Amino acid sequence: CALIHDDVMDGSDTRRNKPAIHKLFESLHDDSSYQGNSERFGLASAILLGDLALVWADRLLVESGVTREEFINAQSVFSDMRDELMAGQYLDVLEGALATTSVERSLKVARFKSGKYSIERPLHLGVAIALGSPSKDNPLNWKLSEFGLPLGEAFQLRDDLLGIFGDPDITGKPAGDDLREGKRTVLMAMAMERTTDAGRTELISYLGRPDLSHEIIEVLRGIIIDSGAVESVEGLIEKLTYDALQASQSHEIAPDAHDLLSALAASATARKS
Amino acid sequence: CALIHDDVMDGSDTRRNKPAIHKLFESLHDDSSYQGNSERFGLASAILLGDLALVWADRLLVESGVTREEFINAQSVFSDMRDELMAGQYLDVLEGALATTSVERSLKVARFKSGKYSIERPLHLGVAIALGSPSKDNPLNWKLSEFGLPLGEAFQLRDDLLGIFGDPDITGKPAGDDLREGKRTVLMAMAMERTTDAGRTELISYLGRPDLSHEIIEVLRGIIIDSGAVESVEGLIEKLTYDALQASQSHEIAPDAHDLLSALAASATARKS
Repeated sequence: CALIHDDVMDGSDTRRNKPAIHKLFESLHDDSSYQGNSERFGLASAILLGDLALVWADRLLVESGVTREEFINAQSVFSDMRDELMAGQYLDVLEGALATTSVERSLKVARFKSGKYSIERPLHLGVAIALGSPSKDNPLNWKLSEFGLPLGEAFQLRDDLLGIFGDPDITGKPAGDDLREGKRTVLMAMAMERTTDAGRTELISYLGRPDLSHEIIEVLRGIIIDSGAVESVEGLIEKLTYDALQASQSHEIAPDAHDLLSALAASATARKS
Repeated sequence: CALIHDDVMDGSDTRRNKPAIHKLFESLHDDSSYQGNSERFGLASAILLGDLALVWADRLLVESGVTREEFINAQSVFSDMRDELMAGQYLDVLEGALATTSVERSLKVARFKSGKYSIERPLHLGVAIALGSPSKDNPLNWKLSEFGLPLGEAFQLRDDLLGIFGDPDITGKPAGDDLREGKRTVLMAMAMERTTDAGRTELISYLGRPDLSHEIIEVLRGIIIDSGAVESVEGLIEKLTYDALQASQSHEIAPDAHDLLSALAASATARKS
């Protein structure tokens, strides 16, 4: 759901080098037997398929083989997780509309949209199923939050960097995609804050324009690098990953999980796609 | 969810005489502190609020006070119900894009979109909770389907009539709303099939145009009435309601529910909004 609706909301036409779902439905409509607006047909179909995916996520959980007791415990975490995701997505949309340049607010979006959804809550889901703990408030969950929240933020910060500097062949997204979409990431907020007045004027005038040329993208990348924002974000990723690793080695977490969590931290933050 | 996303998909600007959710968010955006495209902001916000409503429907069921056992039984019916709704909505979108004039296909849409979702499945949900029956395949459910499916279709056919002939003060929708949206209802399919060549040409040329004047709407209404489609749909509603009422009095259904189901049949089919 999240990805299908995300592409509709962003107006992204591709996902991993392939057409986004709403574009796929739009192309169906090119057949001459269809009438009316193909864009509206693509939009409506993608919204419905996203809704169905959201409902099927529930069904998958029920039919995954967990016991009834485990399902009931997991369901509560699952609901919280989805509430937080929607809230985070809305913050993201809102910050985009407000064209925010606040580092603090961008970090909050990263925390809700990715920190909780990508790492922390899935770990809590595992606890709910494995330990059958009816209370979400237990020391293991706290410790996993201490691991998952910073790691999730680091994961999102890596995403910010890849969204502007990633290799399209590896990320599956067009070069400088986040520049074209005008995404209000932590990286952009830092660049805006730290660049020169001339740099800021350039960034503001080009951000969010879907027709950015490769030359302009190179210029904008240069401004962002020169502002020191890339270095700062890399430093922040390093610090957050370190905090996560510290938490992962705690005695509240079973020793045989320590290596697994370390490996998770590495793959979430050192990735190229 | 269904209604919020429905208005986005249809491009409906109002719901019960009030702005649709995506229009509400769009108007937020008029504040000068917002930047970018207000329509996209409205769209994205409404998609997210609809997603949240879909997730909250789950939460409401869990937290409604049913026991764990009852919840598990209800969850399965609830999942089926939502799958059917999405399938029915997609059929509706697809038939609109294909500009269908098939009475049979329009009836199928009515069955999936409204028949199952509005009446049959909610009754099965009640059975799952009240009887704690783990099997959906039981005689009471079959009998309730015999009641709910025709009644749900009759409910949708009444909706078709109200969508073209309803009083805006009572329905909360603009006059002739379905004509402006070009909805492919059973009523429209029948009118297309039965009107004269001249009538068909008029209908086709005006259907789905958002700027229809009151005069044109009156002309189109006249064509639909003269085709005999209104009379046929009223006849079909009467027959389906009769079938539903017959089923409601069956011995498989507890006698003290007979009156309640009859009253439900009356309010679903004789309504003005």
